[in-house]
Amino acid sequence: MTLAVQPPLEIDTFHPPRRILLGPGPSDLHPQVKSALAQGVIGYLDPVFVSMMEELKTLMRYAFQTKNALTFPMSGPGSVGMEACFVNLVEPGDKVIVCRNGVFGGRMIENVERCGATAIVVEDEWGLAVDPQKLEDALRAHPDARLVAFVHAETSTGAQSDAQTLCDIARRHDCLTIVDAVTSLAGTPVLVDEWGADAVYSATQKCLSCTPGLSPVTFSDRAIEKVRARQTRVQSWFMDLKLVLDYWSASQRTYHHTAPGNSLYGLHEALRLLAAEGLEHAWARHRRHHEALKAGLDQLGLEFIVPEGARLPQMNAVRIPDGMDDKAIRRALLDEYAVEIGAGLGPLAGKIWRFGLMGYSAREENVLGALSAMEMVLAANGMKVDQGAAITAAQRVLATHHHVPASATSA
Amino acid sequence: MTLAVQPPLEIDTFHPPRRILLGPGPSDLHPQVKSALAQGVIGYLDPVFVSMMEELKTLMRYAFQTKNALTFPMSGPGSVGMEACFVNLVEPGDKVIVCRNGVFGGRMIENVERCGATAIVVEDEWGLAVDPQKLEDALRAHPDARLVAFVHAETSTGAQSDAQTLCDIARRHDCLTIVDAVTSLAGTPVLVDEWGADAVYSATQKCLSCTPGLSPVTFSDRAIEKVRARQTRVQSWFMDLKLVLDYWSASQRTYHHTAPGNSLYGLHEALRLLAAEGLEHAWARHRRHHEALKAGLDQLGLEFIVPEGARLPQMNAVRIPDGMDDKAIRRALLDEYAVEIGAGLGPLAGKIWRFGLMGYSAREENVLGALSAMEMVLAANGMKVDQGAAITAAQRVLATHHHVPASATSA
Repeated sequence: MTLAVQPPLEIDTFHPPRRILLGPGPSDLHPQVKSALAQGVIGYLDPVFVSMMEELKTLMRYAFQTKNALTFPMSGPGSVGMEACFVNLVEPGDKVIVCRNGVFGGRMIENVERCGATAIVVEDEWGLAVDPQKLEDALRAHPDARLVAFVHAETSTGAQSDAQTLCDIARRHDCLTIVDAVTSLAGTPVLVDEWGADAVYSATQKCLSCTPGLSPVTFSDRAIEKVRARQTRVQSWFMDLKLVLDYWSASQRTYHHTAPGNSLYGLHEALRLLAAEGLEHAWARHRRHHEALKAGLDQLGLEFIVPEGARLPQMNAVRIPDGMDDKAIRRALLDEYAVEIGAGLGPLAGKIWRFGLMGYSAREENVLGALSAMEMVLAANGMKVDQGAAITAAQRVLATHHHVPASATSA
Repeated sequence: MTLAVQPPLEIDTFHPPRRILLGPGPSDLHPQVKSALAQGVIGYLDPVFVSMMEELKTLMRYAFQTKNALTFPMSGPGSVGMEACFVNLVEPGDKVIVCRNGVFGGRMIENVERCGATAIVVEDEWGLAVDPQKLEDALRAHPDARLVAFVHAETSTGAQSDAQTLCDIARRHDCLTIVDAVTSLAGTPVLVDEWGADAVYSATQKCLSCTPGLSPVTFSDRAIEKVRARQTRVQSWFMDLKLVLDYWSASQRTYHHTAPGNSLYGLHEALRLLAAEGLEHAWARHRRHHEALKAGLDQLGLEFIVPEGARLPQMNAVRIPDGMDDKAIRRALLDEYAVEIGAGLGPLAGKIWRFGLMGYSAREENVLGALSAMEMVLAANGMKVDQGAAITAAQRVLATHHHVPASATSA
């Protein structure tokens, strides 16, 4: 037989170029995570694999600072974690309060609507934290709402909201909470039990520095009760917690879908590295490199869009100076210095640059390398730059800040 | 501050044991696929990454034997590919004909119902192919149905249905088709354009021998038209083809979700290996090793549940002999010989064993190793076994069948 489509034999093995990943994620993989990924796959019902899954749940509970039994990685990117929270906790006709101060709040609204529910939107300017008073007002105006959703760390702007206060307000109004911790987990404190958050999702390619494609999630007992009490069937088969639970529970291990083995090995190792470093040290490391980067960006005259106090150390958004060509500069950073930074999204497209310092990417050489590249590229584009000043400013911070050990290489 | 949950430091790096994967998937990873997985991750909008994605689409079109523009890997396991087909092509109130002859037809029905539509079920016995006449009858009885869904290769039984005939019937009744090619792709002919199939999904961990967690999909222009003409919004944000399209189209590359970079590297390499081997050779290799395994299983007195002619070479389901303890024997195969085989699902639980010979797992040493282990474990469990006879029978087949080159190691 002759095949209708012939094999494309001219395609070579893919080898990614070296990159310094300082965008909104993915961040650099730790070498041990890469090694973990390359191991042989085994069956998802193999007793050895099942033990690894139990360890994964324990490690995830540490990262989330929770005792929630239902803590596991969804087999899809962060958007799957988000959608899983909504399709399980929202029923058609529900009213859900969604706080929007960036792209991901907007995506939450989309999710609410696709569940056949109504989103009551609490709007805040992009770049600001969610205003707790506005949430309070919305809950008073809509006493029938039973669910509040907000983004803890808005990747599109670098703003961090006060999750503790927002969760407290929601609880006082008898609402459950869905919290987006995609960019915060392991970068800044995510304290699920202390906050009293009910459904929290994250992603692996940000401050965990693991391969993209998994979404760690955790659900409180209250959230599980709400899922159990649903009047309607969850609209997604793949994300239906009742089915997923049967696969992830230790007692009863039934087939749901084939687990993404290699990616889970990588997550196991990334979480192990986090436990070995210690969460407080990981938070301090992100803070330290943020301070150094900030000193350098200040020196270059680049202004943060987020007010001090609400800034995420792992996501630094600065205004693009007048007259600078956004795309040309990002392209030069990538082509000439192998530095990837993030562009602005939505209304901030062309207006900001986003410097991520996430997980294994949050290292001295990356801060210095990025600032050096910025100095040179901005100068080449006609900006007046005091060559070396940004780096010197960053160095000064790195020298004076208490040294935090770099990510441990073994536990 | 004192953390509420302390780090679990007693957890070591995970190293999977050696396994001979002859279950229903995952199959063994080719060494080059493992190497591909361990590479550094880069940004999903990086021009180099975007080029890799274009190559991936070309390679996938070869595997599916299609010219469909919309051919790409969904960022989730096969069940995501399945659900994506249904949520995009089905609207509430629709009537969908679903052919069920195993587990995955049942899952299709679940999907139809969760879309708010009605499933008209064409039932066939588990282990048999779908009966085209029953489909014809159902379409005559329900002339308002506009969609037919069936499983080409039923992983739960090892039965292959006649996709060409089923697609032809559907077309004659003005229906689009959704085809499950999870276990068939690269193992037996999947000829999307020749069949005239409209939405076909597969998975990476079967005959492609790639890491689990991705679902290759392809959609005909008719399917895209149907999605474009929808009256209602797709219920899933993550799986909404209109949004995913913007990310996977070459002209317009907008952010949808962070692509699972490492897994995509692995798929790129797995598909490259397939192109280098050639589809016809891959099909012949699966056939050859199936014939050898079958000769050995026959010798052991193990009967196939699927009638000859409808048997998938890559999934061999045999009846468990009376008096044999299913779980104990599978456990002994795994613990003593590192051989994983599959259990029966649903009504076939405890009644059958499933021997997968998929992708890189379909090799001589695996056929011989599995038969040797079966001989010893069955004998140890009291079955009268003519030691060595099964292996000899398999060897004879391997020697007489025209030798097909093993999977090429470089293109």
